[in-house]
Amino acid sequence: MTDAVADPRSDALIAGLRFSAEGLIPAIAQQHDSGEVLMLAWMSRESLGETLRTGQVTYWSRSRQALWRKGETSGHRQRLVELRYDCDEDALLLLVDQTGPACHTNRRSCFYRAWRAGEAIMLEAPMKSV
Amino acid sequence: MTDAVADPRSDALIAGLRFSAEGLIPAIAQQHDSGEVLMLAWMSRESLGETLRTGQVTYWSRSRQALWRKGETSGHRQRLVELRYDCDEDALLLLVDQTGPACHTNRRSCFYRAWRAGEAIMLEAPMKSV
Repeated sequence: MTDAVADPRSDALIAGLRFSAEGLIPAIAQQHDSGEVLMLAWMSRESLGETLRTGQVTYWSRSRQALWRKGETSGHRQRLVELRYDCDEDALLLLVDQTGPACHTNRRSCFYRAWRAGEAIMLEAPMKSV
Repeated sequence: MTDAVADPRSDALIAGLRFSAEGLIPAIAQQHDSGEVLMLAWMSRESLGETLRTGQVTYWSRSRQALWRKGETSGHRQRLVELRYDCDEDALLLLVDQTGPACHTNRRSCFYRAWRAGEAIMLEAPMKSV
């Protein structure tokens, strides 16, 4: 699926979703087979459309105010396996196949810290570069 | 854990998190043993503090602009098993033990619809009331 032409079918989905005043919707990325929650990021209508067209996950970077093609430079891409959305149509769940670490700290998941008995516990060390 | 007194240890966590201009942070609820993503909702500092104190998940309802003690009326509560937070300190992952359905539509997960080949597919029927 690398059709650069807008897909009227994804347009129908996008028109039915509720984006924030800034035009964004939160998207949870979950590894499709292990169930691990990898990250939470944001999508614009454009980034969601591109994700559905290409099958590679593209977010909206709020800090850079630009499309964020996940893994474009690092190679740590997310292939979209399935898109789900919630009862209120204001949150997305992306089942993905993550190449390498999802986190910019080189960890598999961005949620690598737990709060236990008043202390932050590190659950995962950074992956070694190959 | 039903200590109504503010816990200075959770205060340290809350002070280190990044809440939005509205004072909210997105929180993903995931069933701790199955890995199923149940819902995405929002927490205020107060609701997070209450969650950590009581061990029962409390969100902030944006529509009602009030604390939302999950399952208070329905009984479909979420017991907090572990709190995790992400690399940017602006998103939470709650590992929970969900009683009954998490969704107000009486489904286990709010993410009960998938978008497949341009069509919304229902993944789960509402649970039967007992």
